[in-house]
Amino acid sequence: MSVATHRIPVPRDRGDDYTREAATARVEFARERTGASLDHVSSYSFDPAVLSGNVEQFIGVAQVPIGLAGPLLVNGEHAQGEFYVPLATAEGTLVASYNRGMRLLHEAGCVSTTIIDARMQRAPAFVCESAREARAFGSWLDEHFDEIAQAAEATTRTGRLQDIEQYSASRILFTRFNYTTGDAAGQNLTGKATQAACQWIVERCPGIERYFLESNFATDKKSSQVNMLRTRGKRVVAEATIPNELVHRIMRSDTGLMFRARQVSNLGGFMSGVNNNGAHSANGITAMFIATGQDAANVAESSAAFVHAELDPSGDYYYSVTIPSLIVATYGGGTGLATQRECLEVLGCYGSGKVNKFAEIVAATVLCGELSLGSAIVAEEWVAAHDLLGRNRPT
Amino acid sequence: MSVATHRIPVPRDRGDDYTREAATARVEFARERTGASLDHVSSYSFDPAVLSGNVEQFIGVAQVPIGLAGPLLVNGEHAQGEFYVPLATAEGTLVASYNRGMRLLHEAGCVSTTIIDARMQRAPAFVCESAREARAFGSWLDEHFDEIAQAAEATTRTGRLQDIEQYSASRILFTRFNYTTGDAAGQNLTGKATQAACQWIVERCPGIERYFLESNFATDKKSSQVNMLRTRGKRVVAEATIPNELVHRIMRSDTGLMFRARQVSNLGGFMSGVNNNGAHSANGITAMFIATGQDAANVAESSAAFVHAELDPSGDYYYSVTIPSLIVATYGGGTGLATQRECLEVLGCYGSGKVNKFAEIVAATVLCGELSLGSAIVAEEWVAAHDLLGRNRPT
Amino acid sequence: MSVATHRIPVPRDRGDDYTREAATARVEFARERTGASLDHVSSYSFDPAVLSGNVEQFIGVAQVPIGLAGPLLVNGEHAQGEFYVPLATAEGTLVASYNRGMRLLHEAGCVSTTIIDARMQRAPAFVCESAREARAFGSWLDEHFDEIAQAAEATTRTGRLQDIEQYSASRILFTRFNYTTGDAAGQNLTGKATQAACQWIVERCPGIERYFLESNFATDKKSSQVNMLRTRGKRVVAEATIPNELVHRIMRSDTGLMFRARQVSNLGGFMSGVNNNGAHSANGITAMFIATGQDAANVAESSAAFVHAELDPSGDYYYSVTIPSLIVATYGGGTGLATQRECLEVLGCYGSGKVNKFAEIVAATVLCGELSLGSAIVAEEWVAAHDLLGRNRPT
Amino acid sequence: MSVATHRIPVPRDRGDDYTREAATARVEFARERTGASLDHVSSYSFDPAVLSGNVEQFIGVAQVPIGLAGPLLVNGEHAQGEFYVPLATAEGTLVASYNRGMRLLHEAGCVSTTIIDARMQRAPAFVCESAREARAFGSWLDEHFDEIAQAAEATTRTGRLQDIEQYSASRILFTRFNYTTGDAAGQNLTGKATQAACQWIVERCPGIERYFLESNFATDKKSSQVNMLRTRGKRVVAEATIPNELVHRIMRSDTGLMFRARQVSNLGGFMSGVNNNGAHSANGITAMFIATGQDAANVAESSAAFVHAELDPSGDYYYSVTIPSLIVATYGGGTGLATQRECLEVLGCYGSGKVNKFAEIVAATVLCGELSLGSAIVAEEWVAAHDLLGRNRPT
Repeated sequence: MSVATHRIPVPRDRGDDYTREAATARVEFARERTGASLDHVSSYSFDPAVLSGNVEQFIGVAQVPIGLAGPLLVNGEHAQGEFYVPLATAEGTLVASYNRGMRLLHEAGCVSTTIIDARMQRAPAFVCESAREARAFGSWLDEHFDEIAQAAEATTRTGRLQDIEQYSASRILFTRFNYTTGDAAGQNLTGKATQAACQWIVERCPGIERYFLESNFATDKKSSQVNMLRTRGKRVVAEATIPNELVHRIMRSDTGLMFRARQVSNLGGFMSGVNNNGAHSANGITAMFIATGQDAANVAESSAAFVHAELDPSGDYYYSVTIPSLIVATYGGGTGLATQRECLEVLGCYGSGKVNKFAEIVAATVLCGELSLGSAIVAEEWVAAHDLLGRNRPT
Repeated sequence: MSVATHRIPVPRDRGDDYTREAATARVEFARERTGASLDHVSSYSFDPAVLSGNVEQFIGVAQVPIGLAGPLLVNGEHAQGEFYVPLATAEGTLVASYNRGMRLLHEAGCVSTTIIDARMQRAPAFVCESAREARAFGSWLDEHFDEIAQAAEATTRTGRLQDIEQYSASRILFTRFNYTTGDAAGQNLTGKATQAACQWIVERCPGIERYFLESNFATDKKSSQVNMLRTRGKRVVAEATIPNELVHRIMRSDTGLMFRARQVSNLGGFMSGVNNNGAHSANGITAMFIATGQDAANVAESSAAFVHAELDPSGDYYYSVTIPSLIVATYGGGTGLATQRECLEVLGCYGSGKVNKFAEIVAATVLCGELSLGSAIVAEEWVAAHDLLGRNRPT
Repeated sequence: MSVATHRIPVPRDRGDDYTREAATARVEFARERTGASLDHVSSYSFDPAVLSGNVEQFIGVAQVPIGLAGPLLVNGEHAQGEFYVPLATAEGTLVASYNRGMRLLHEAGCVSTTIIDARMQRAPAFVCESAREARAFGSWLDEHFDEIAQAAEATTRTGRLQDIEQYSASRILFTRFNYTTGDAAGQNLTGKATQAACQWIVERCPGIERYFLESNFATDKKSSQVNMLRTRGKRVVAEATIPNELVHRIMRSDTGLMFRARQVSNLGGFMSGVNNNGAHSANGITAMFIATGQDAANVAESSAAFVHAELDPSGDYYYSVTIPSLIVATYGGGTGLATQRECLEVLGCYGSGKVNKFAEIVAATVLCGELSLGSAIVAEEWVAAHDLLGRNRPT
Repeated sequence: MSVATHRIPVPRDRGDDYTREAATARVEFARERTGASLDHVSSYSFDPAVLSGNVEQFIGVAQVPIGLAGPLLVNGEHAQGEFYVPLATAEGTLVASYNRGMRLLHEAGCVSTTIIDARMQRAPAFVCESAREARAFGSWLDEHFDEIAQAAEATTRTGRLQDIEQYSASRILFTRFNYTTGDAAGQNLTGKATQAACQWIVERCPGIERYFLESNFATDKKSSQVNMLRTRGKRVVAEATIPNELVHRIMRSDTGLMFRARQVSNLGGFMSGVNNNGAHSANGITAMFIATGQDAANVAESSAAFVHAELDPSGDYYYSVTIPSLIVATYGGGTGLATQRECLEVLGCYGSGKVNKFAEIVAATVLCGELSLGSAIVAEEWVAAHDLLGRNRPT
């Protein structure tokens, strides 16, 4: 390989880098070096000034197509009634499939949603001189919880430290600092608060050799058993009972068969070591995340799920999906950007006091998609459906 | 909850639903029902006619900001030289962090990338009358591989059946039909091919009571140990050796300290049951996926990773990341959409014969991000960096 | 702590250490230092001369009580008919519980058993200079398989190398050398054979920096997903269909209720990250292992299991257990010791050509125990049963 | 298969089944049916009357050879000084290997042991009408903790309910009732106490449809992530720092090389999905368990382990093993049997107030075995050592 002798960085405007001019300069730079026109990337409808906390070295936008599915009928504690759900995706059949599930559950009388738990965390690891010191430090943490909470919360208006979980191995105490974070997802505010708490701690507690603010125990943007067990973000359940008659009529499928397929999927998933024994929750979650300005990298952990179904002798099918680590926000991050805010507004979910409502709508949407694909697989319509709608596909 | 008495579906144009008019009709519909303006969502720069295989009930686009990072210096077998990498994200500091890592590894002399394996699969489960029948069916499958491959490949121009893995439990044989899929990610073509193969099989092999085309053994859009072991999509390694002097100068950090932090992260991740012992590969992968029209729902499995580092007594730091299930395409799906294609063109990766090059650039980008965050964490700059650049954040 | 100034090792007889005299000398030594009488430990009925490959610094025996359960009715390919099963345990109710399950399945007409796969492995890891070298080494391995097998098999009369699985990450190629091992469990012969193969390999293949004979990829005496997927030792299925009438009459329980409990157990196990979604296979396996001279440390991996059950609308209950990594032998190790051999003889399983028969009896026994405890749990008899029989327990 | 027309159960003496006569009658029965002599099995040195809570249908004993290793030098909080450790095994080299590790750590100045946590649990699952009811039930549990503890503790003299962990999915609340259990392992007393607690609960709390006393969330005799995270039995750490000079002299190995091998093992174990990133803790644990009357079926969960090592630039090697779910007792179960009690007495661990001491000795023994095998592997002595001592092995 010819190692470049001179590294040419992407140009930045030291005065104000969040202008159309600065963006255009970079587009020109990229055009020259790569030959790509970037005409469409350059077509955005908002002022780059709003982007200063969202992106660096801005050149334009990815335009991701949005389809509108619905109406989704939700019986939640925060989301009540009908919703039309914007799904940003380029995967043919995705919107149609979720839409079909929404129709099924609308006729079935709706989806019930419940937020079981909510907590965002940072997970510092403290290395002590010995296991005994680490154990003593654990007790010290318990004793000083109130002061630690005060140190953490001094850095944030909305974050509140709920508790500090402890997991020990060797001479290391792994902790999870769990916070409530209001309408923000909260990864940043909890990072800052926990950093402050750690500084307070290490100044006062002898015997800590070193600490690391993250050591794979909160598993931000990664999937983990600890988050599936102990919650990260929201833990939400969506559940419904569907009469077999509806499944016959709308889905051309059968609950008895769906239940048998579920048993085989449960066994398969247990054996394959999957983090989700359901079908494809990541599809709906990702499409909603991109549309509404969530951090789509959190699909890594938000895509974990537990499906539990029960077949009544009558043929009625109880079906539930539990999302143990759904990371969502209606404030901060990308939620205030032009199109993203509009999509949240379509759901009545923009801004303060809306995050639980939004979480419930996501979970309800996921349930619709699970039932839609779950019934299609056994109806042998699945491949056929992809074939019909997914015409942009290579064969 | 007041159950809606009359369900009003999203309007569709039965003649041609992929027009600005049809989209506008839906936007009006959504506006009336929700009050959201959708002005920005409606601002797209391409003709909706192109979307017929990508989305249903189209209303407009999510505009996701793109920052340009680079130059990234890659020494791959398919990607060679410098690249400027478009990252679509709304997470402040992400582009800056990857950019910093790219600078470090540019000065270190580049990243080496290797595609170890490539396979896309569907995983039908066959339920037999007994475990003995299932075992016999496994032998039958081996004996008839050539004919099965023929049946599968008859449905596709680019897919080739490589082998059929078998995993048995109870009276069920779980299989993985592994294909090469050219420049497509291949989930759809492998679905169709495997469906055809299954039909061929069940017509000829007695003793199969029932089969299901998917039973959580290929774990599309889910993370699983079987995919981490056996590969889904590309298995790619990016590796580099970085002198401590560079880490001191550019990252204000230290390789010895980074290595110690890595040990603690490895232990933490093993204990927490994480699918990625690294730092945050999902960030770079997601941002590249959205920019270039990959299916971002595949972040669920593409975010799995193995990090392996070694510290030389000299302070030189060997660092590698292995992505065992990276799902990428340079053809089909969303790759041909307006902005997405432009971003692939920036990388010289649009179209036929480019998928390995693209996979290598993704892996190299991930490595830069790992080293950037890995060094920042121990330099205690991490929270500070977020604080400075992430101004749109709630506190 | 007062560090001992002078370390006094356990006495050994350099001439012949496997005599009653040498053992008695050690017992005296222990008695003096600890005050324990060791009278019972010293009561063994065989000549220590037989122990030279089984134990060092022999002092006597643990006398573990054996209960006899049965008759177990097995319809296997190797085990056919009725068996009385010796179970070595000190856990009250264990023998009674297995015995009750054996009665149930005897009346139901027996257990069907099938050995799906059999392989014992060593898993050397090869560290190369780079990922590309590691990939090249993988190809080299494939090309030289026959010669490698020859080098491995030169060290053993019974072991045959079947294949070499490859799993790569970073610049390391992890392999699994899979062998058939006759009637031995084979951990030692495969170790020796693989060591020879590795020496042959590193002498001929450049680019290998270093190799380690074990690196947690065969997971001897540990439980792992890779062994659950790919088999270690025997992969055995035991299955049966039980009429609800029998469950009512014999177990005072109900299949419908058992099936519902199973669903909840499946979900619980998926969420808790368990290696066995069944009830307690380790109980029966351990008791048979100790009685028959198996290596009870292999309970670590042999206790992994997959339970799959189906409820027929008639109430008939199909129930199966799959043991993916059952490590058993009827030759070598502890199988030839005095009491252990007698217990194998009770089963007609001592010596050459019997290992598959033995594996089937173990699996059938496990199935009986699963159904017994599974029915007891829902019959709320479980604690009551423990209370009645487990009188030696603290409360 | 010829289905037996008449099932002949194992004979029992309805008057008193725990006599030599009753045992002899069964031995005669087995002899007649199987031809096995059972002479050695019949050679036991104690009165069967003691077995009434330990085994049913007693016929005799398995005589498992015991080797004595040591001295083991321990610096624990409960175990202090030198111990000679009885290991019951038929695996050649096991005792020698542990003995060698004990010598190494004796010269290094000893092993430090720490019990980090201790808790035994039962894990009932409560099925409610809906997720909302399940969440409400969770709050109800918190509010009534004191009364529930009272109901549970009324059934036991030694068990104390510490807390009730909650994990929810679907309309099910999985719980872990955590107890301290004195010197007993406590599976039985916690079962009985939790059963009583559940009865108290369901009589008072409406909305519980059904509960199951176990649903794979305490994972008795199975390995699980939840137990590795949250402890079952004792969570014990053994740690030591070993000078490279000692490793050179005693083990003919090198700490730098051992550390490199450890890195590769860590990666291998992470990828293979193992429950123990160490070498072979199950060997020492099982041998001590059989010798001292522990329930060896608990090797399933007791064999999980976390190894964490650090290499000092000087070559000093810090090495630790954490056993997160070590199930041990010094009272009840098999601990009072003739030989088992003697072995506990050799360790000064029989009876009341000794369980922590015993747990520390187990952990220290495990550490010695890890270092012994860990050094042997890299010294390429491993196979050779097996070859020399393991003469009873098939080749």
